[in-house]
Parts: sequence; C-alpha cells; structure tokens
Amino acid sequence: MAIAQDVLTRLQTLLGTEGVLTRPEDLIPYSFDGTAALRESPGCVAFPRSTEQVRAVLKLATETRTPVVTRGSGTGLSGGSLPTPDCIVLCLVRMDRVNEVDTANLTLLVEAGVTTQTIADTVAAAGLFYPPDPGSMKISTIGGNVAENSGGLRGLKYGVTRSYVMGLEVVLPDGEIIWTGNKCVKDVAGYSLRDLFIGSEGTLGVITKVLLKLIPKPAAKRTMVATYARMDQAAQTVSDIIAAQIIPCTLEFLDRTTIHCVDDYAKIGLPRDCEALLLMETDGHPTVVAEEAARMEELARKNACKEVIVARDDAEAARLASARRTAFSALARVAPTTILEDVTVPRSELAAMVRFVEATAKKHHLRVGTFGHMGDGNLHPTFLTDERNTEEMHRVEAAFAEIFDEAIRLGGTITGEHGVGVAKKQYLPKFAGEPAMKVMRELRRTFDPAGILNPGKLLD
Amino acid sequence: MAIAQDVLTRLQTLLGTEGVLTRPEDLIPYSFDGTAALRESPGCVAFPRSTEQVRAVLKLATETRTPVVTRGSGTGLSGGSLPTPDCIVLCLVRMDRVNEVDTANLTLLVEAGVTTQTIADTVAAAGLFYPPDPGSMKISTIGGNVAENSGGLRGLKYGVTRSYVMGLEVVLPDGEIIWTGNKCVKDVAGYSLRDLFIGSEGTLGVITKVLLKLIPKPAAKRTMVATYARMDQAAQTVSDIIAAQIIPCTLEFLDRTTIHCVDDYAKIGLPRDCEALLLMETDGHPTVVAEEAARMEELARKNACKEVIVARDDAEAARLASARRTAFSALARVAPTTILEDVTVPRSELAAMVRFVEATAKKHHLRVGTFGHMGDGNLHPTFLTDERNTEEMHRVEAAFAEIFDEAIRLGGTITGEHGVGVAKKQYLPKFAGEPAMKVMRELRRTFDPAGILNPGKLLD
Repeated sequence: MAIAQDVLTRLQTLLGTEGVLTRPEDLIPYSFDGTAALRESPGCVAFPRSTEQVRAVLKLATETRTPVVTRGSGTGLSGGSLPTPDCIVLCLVRMDRVNEVDTANLTLLVEAGVTTQTIADTVAAAGLFYPPDPGSMKISTIGGNVAENSGGLRGLKYGVTRSYVMGLEVVLPDGEIIWTGNKCVKDVAGYSLRDLFIGSEGTLGVITKVLLKLIPKPAAKRTMVATYARMDQAAQTVSDIIAAQIIPCTLEFLDRTTIHCVDDYAKIGLPRDCEALLLMETDGHPTVVAEEAARMEELARKNACKEVIVARDDAEAARLASARRTAFSALARVAPTTILEDVTVPRSELAAMVRFVEATAKKHHLRVGTFGHMGDGNLHPTFLTDERNTEEMHRVEAAFAEIFDEAIRLGGTITGEHGVGVAKKQYLPKFAGEPAMKVMRELRRTFDPAGILNPGKLLD
Repeated sequence: MAIAQDVLTRLQTLLGTEGVLTRPEDLIPYSFDGTAALRESPGCVAFPRSTEQVRAVLKLATETRTPVVTRGSGTGLSGGSLPTPDCIVLCLVRMDRVNEVDTANLTLLVEAGVTTQTIADTVAAAGLFYPPDPGSMKISTIGGNVAENSGGLRGLKYGVTRSYVMGLEVVLPDGEIIWTGNKCVKDVAGYSLRDLFIGSEGTLGVITKVLLKLIPKPAAKRTMVATYARMDQAAQTVSDIIAAQIIPCTLEFLDRTTIHCVDDYAKIGLPRDCEALLLMETDGHPTVVAEEAARMEELARKNACKEVIVARDDAEAARLASARRTAFSALARVAPTTILEDVTVPRSELAAMVRFVEATAKKHHLRVGTFGHMGDGNLHPTFLTDERNTEEMHRVEAAFAEIFDEAIRLGGTITGEHGVGVAKKQYLPKFAGEPAMKVMRELRRTFDPAGILNPGKLLD
C-alpha cells in the first residue's frame, strides 16, 4: 500500500518540493538502515528544517493516520528506522544547527540532525569532551543516538548517551512541543519525561533538539594491547584491574576469528596464535595515567598474557585502537552477510558468555567472530553468513534465540546498545516479563494513541 | 474520614497486629515529614517486611480504593509523605536487608528501607563508594532517596541518586511486581521504566528493592574554605575553577546570615565580616588533589577572597565541612519555623539568583539565610519565620512565588532535590508547561488508574 496522493501533496505544501522525495530511485537510500537483510521502500521521505515543520508533518500524519518512521543517517543496527511502503520517512539530517556551546555551564545545544562527530569536534575545539562514541559516530546523528541510547567504547568509565542528555525538545504525535530538562545539574520537578524519550526508538515522539552535558577533556591517554592464549586470562585481567580500583576508559576485546580478520584487513601485525586480544586505554591526569597504565600492564603479565604492546605515541595508539575500530568492517569483508549482535551480561559473566557463543556457533555449524566491550559486558557476536542461504539463516536465528536465553539467564540483556527495533522485538517479552510489557504498551498508547510512530517496531 | 474497620482488620491479617499501628498516639510520628508547617494524622501505619506483603497491601488498597502514602524515615522536604486521615501509611523501614555487595560488578542490592548511611558504610567497608549524600543521609532510606531522586553535596562531579540506580523492584498498585534494570552497564531493551520511577515521588508504584552502581573510593581529599566580601567574587571563583577544567567534588556556599548563625551554633571561628563563604573539596588521586587544591586556592585569591583556610588534616577538614553540614540546623535554631527551599538555576546564574532572593526577602520584610550548592546551581534559601504568624506566612508565600518565577525565567527549576510533593505542586504547571503536564497526568493514570498512590500530591 503506497502513500495517498493527497498526503504527498500536503507534505509538499508544508516542506516545499525540495523537502519531499517520492521517486522510486530517490527512495532507495532510505529503504534500509545498518541492519543486515532488512529492506523495504518507504512511501516518501520528508526533510523538515525546523521544529515547526516537524510539528506540521506530525499533525498531518496523525490526522491522516499515516505511519511516520523517523531517522537520521540510518546507521541503526536493529532495523529501528526500516520504513514501510505506507510511511513517511521523517529524515532530520537537515536540522543540523549547533545552537549553543555554553562553556560556563558545560552544555551544548544542538538540533537532532547534527552528527556525533560534529559534536565531538565542536566541543573539542572548546577544550571540552563529549564521551559517547558509537561505532557509527562519523555519520550518525545525535537524534538517533538519543532515540537508541547509543553506547560506544567508553561505557564503563563514562556511561552512555543517557548519561549526557540534560534536556530534549520533543514533538508529540499530535503536534504538541515539549521541552523536558534544562541546564540544571539537579532538577526533580515532575516525572523525567526526558529519560523516557531516551532509548524509546522513535515510538513516543520526535526528538528535535538535544541539550548535552560536557566534561573537561582528559589531559592524557595511554593505549595498550595485550594478547592471551585463553579468553579466561583476558577476563581475569579485567577483573583484576577493577579490583585494583582502576576504571579504564577502554577495555575492549577481540576473539581469534576477529583478530585474524582484522589483521588480514588492516595489516596491523597482530599476533595470530592467540585466543583473545585486549585493548586497554586509561585517560585523565598524566600522573594517574602513567600509574594506571603501569599497573594494567603488570596485571596483564600476571595473567600470563603472551605479549603487551604499550603505544609510545599517538600514532601507535591510533594503530592499536584501529584493531578494535575496524573489527566490524574486517569481519564484514569475509562473508556476504554479517549479522552483528550485542547481547550484554554483567561483566563477571563475560567470559562464560563468549564461551557459550562459540559453543552455540559450533553446534549450529556457523562461523562467528566475537568482539566488544569487556569492561561493560557488552559483546558483539558477529555471524558470518549469507542471507540468500535461507537454511543457514534459520540456523543463525536458532543460535541467536539460544544466545539471548543464555544472556537473560546470566542476568544480562538482549541488547546493550543497538536497540530492539524489529530485529529483537520477538525477544523483548521474555526479557522484560509480561507486567513490564503491559506497562510499556500502555505508555506507548498514552503518547501515541493513533499509533502512527514507528508502528510494528519495539513492541505491539 | 477515617479508614474503614474492615480494611484495618484485613491489614492486620496480612501483616500481623505488630505490623499495623492504629492508636492515635502511635500515629503521631507518622503525621508529618521533614517539611515545615505540614501535619495530618494517617488512618493507620502498615509495616511490610517483604515484597509479597507490599503486594498484598496494594491489592487490598486498590480493591477498597484506600489511599496509600509510602514513606521511609519521613525526612522529605516537600510533604511527599504527608498522610491523609483516610490513608494507609506504608512504611518500609522494616525492609532493611542488604542483599548483596557484588565487588566484581561494582553493584549493591538492598531493600528499600536500608538507610543511606548504612549503604555508605557497607560499601566503604568493601573499599567502594556510593557518592549521593543527601543532608538527611544518616536516617533517610534509599527507597525515599530514589522516589525523590535525592541530591546532596557532590552533584556537580558525581551526579545525583539517578546516576547510581541500575535496577529497581517495584510493586504496581494492582499488585504486579516489576523488575526494571540489571547489572549491565549498557541495556537498551525497551523503555526505561526504571528512570520513570526514579523521582516519581510514590505516585507510580512502590519501590521495594534497589540495585545501585558503586565506584572506587577516591584515594585522597582536600578541603578548604574561602571567604569573600561579595557573593559575586565567590561566584567568579567557581566560574574560574570550571574554566580551569577542574570539577571539584564539593563547591558549597553560605551567605552572611547563614555564616553568622552557623558560627553562633557550631563555634567554628568563621570570619563574620564577609558576604559569602565557599567550601571547596577536591578528591581523587593524591597528585591530582594536590594540584587542584593549589589551583583552587590560587583562583580564590585571584578573586580577592579575604581568607583561604586549607585543612591540614581530616579533623580540620571535618570542622570546615561542618560549617556547611550544620547550616540548616543552625538557621533552624533562630526562628520557630524555618522554611527550606531549593530553587535551582544554571550555575552561571547563581549569583544573580542569590541577589534576587535577598532583594525579595527585603521587599517582603522577611529574614532569609541562603546556602547551597554553588557548583550545581542548587540554592537553599531558608526563610526564618513563625508558622503561627499567618500574616508573615502570606508574605513568605508571596516571596516564594516571585523566587520560583525568577528561577524559571533564568532557565532553572522549582526544585533541585527536594521534590514537588504538596509544597511545590501549585508551581509545577508553570514550570513544566501544559503539554508536559498533560502527558504526566496521563502517565500517572496509566500506572495507577484507581488513583490510590499519594493522591493529591505532585499533580492532579
């Protein structure tokens, strides 16, 4: 079912003809996001340039019961911005103004379409730091980051996107505009609607502006890589680091498959005869960084690492960090379809979860590379497959179901940073339980009684 | 209207006779919280010992449409646990088990009736740190802290209660039990119900268990006090400290009235010929602490402070910090009624707000002492009055209305850490705006369709 012509005409009146795409070839780039094996053409794509235009589009959509799928750059990994043929894709990339850098209050006000990289660069120029660094940060937009509550490599020490959102401007489906939050470090007046919108995946309202908290830029950073014959040794190193009262800014790992793919791809010269690689970074005051780095190296050696490489300069640090940053691209090269997952468990259960993923892949005769955030228990098992092989895809699905069950059993979650979208929707009830699902369904109806925002996603 | 006899009988069957108070003299301690000039006797007080008992009480209350006012130690400062004659006070202080200290995942699981001080002591014994330190922490319960999203003196550097809540067990009015959150640093599966319950002031559900995030204990701390002839100089010192990329753990101020009252009370030997006193603390690695303390002292002198006292040891640090810790008690001594407020503004507007409070008090011929958190913009203007003097109380109310208007105008909030309760209820609509109020009212009805939880509080 395509979108009604009169809706298109009214949209063009609201946004101008340059603000609406309707030709099939123009719709192609908006027919998928970063999630493998999902594709659907939208009814049209609308590009508002202001909150008022978003309001007008939502009022029209509510009045005509037209589904709205909001997106930024479309880097999502759970199909959260996958369109439907009857929907308006509301693409906010043209709302890309940086409204204010407030160095006195350490805040940044931006429109939703500003990229995460622009934010990082803008605040760095002011000597400040915005820590969340999702993998797609070069092109992802802050609106998408907030809607998905994106994570990144610095979660353990610095938290995730939620930890830095102080305020939001949100347009509700009926066109009402809400401001929630402000520049106050403390504010307890009323329910935190802000926190409800964070991570709501475009189902409760459309985020149009974001007020972010900034922090001082760490003065120094030290990067090192350790390799291990066994994953347990890497996990024990992480436990020992935490027990030593050190909270590193980065504690990332790669398994053997990922190490091989990365080294084939990026030619970093990684050792190949190891089961785990740990990328560790500490940042802050130079004295603290030097002490922590020395202690971390010592703990890596205590746990029988095969080798520790401590970066001597920024260039070497960047080269070592690229082992982790390129992990997904490197894996993606070796198979037609790579399915990237992000189950998460309490940190103490990470080694057990990695072993379970390996055993499950073996049982289903599947190839998997696992990497991720060892410090915060967030794994990215990446299945190397081919979506055209439907029999293999069924085995991948069976493996995922077992992996999610095990994550829940270990006190973890079905998604640490990618969201539910369509990819995890069927697993949410088991994770959340029926009483919480009932509340979530009612919340959704409260915000969006007409059911126009991202229908079919997250939950029914 | 008292509570129905059959409800009392059924409550006694559920909790045992020792679990329900009904005699008028036994109800007196539960007829008020920490808020001045508010008092009302409850229908009865119920003391559940388990989540199952909370569930049973709520099912009974929903079935019989009996209002429920949940409380811990009753230290609230906005009347959030003020009872009504027809209500069950659900007092959770007997649910005081510390369930688990998890040093591997840096988490603590406790029942809602555990005191904040017990939490601080428990985690300190494990070498860890739970930063939120509301003024009433010696007796306040964590359930109350979460329900009010309590702050404290460390907000700027360490955040507030919300920043440390990883998971909650909540009983809904219909008796359903929800677990929201877990030990994962990252979890984006579904709406964050956890964040909606935090700060909801007992209106959405009853919090029965809390999973808290812990951090390593800072190795060192340095405490200093600076005094100033003018408040602007203190404010400029704070701005300069932030501009120097230092985030101190404490940046508290007292105005002249408060300094005098504190020194009369605690005999600390504070200088009396000054308009502002700044208490500054830095904590962390010893090297960093030494550097930051030296820089803060230098910036205080640069801004023409009259004197800087740097504590030489823990005893002197405790003595200096007591100037701030005793501020409210000291002010409370000098008048029959002290009304403690907590308007909050962006940090850059704090000096302007302090001046406005002073001018407003003068205009209405009222005595006020102001102290609070200069680092996070959270002021505590404390009016020294007498609740029996109704004419003066009207002037106090008029002054507050003007102060809240000004806080909103400056981009601030009507409450930084005390909550809305009954004390600020009339000001919430102006602060939040009608579209947000409408959403909040609908949210409340979604969770509590029978309207039994804290009716008449927060919003209608």
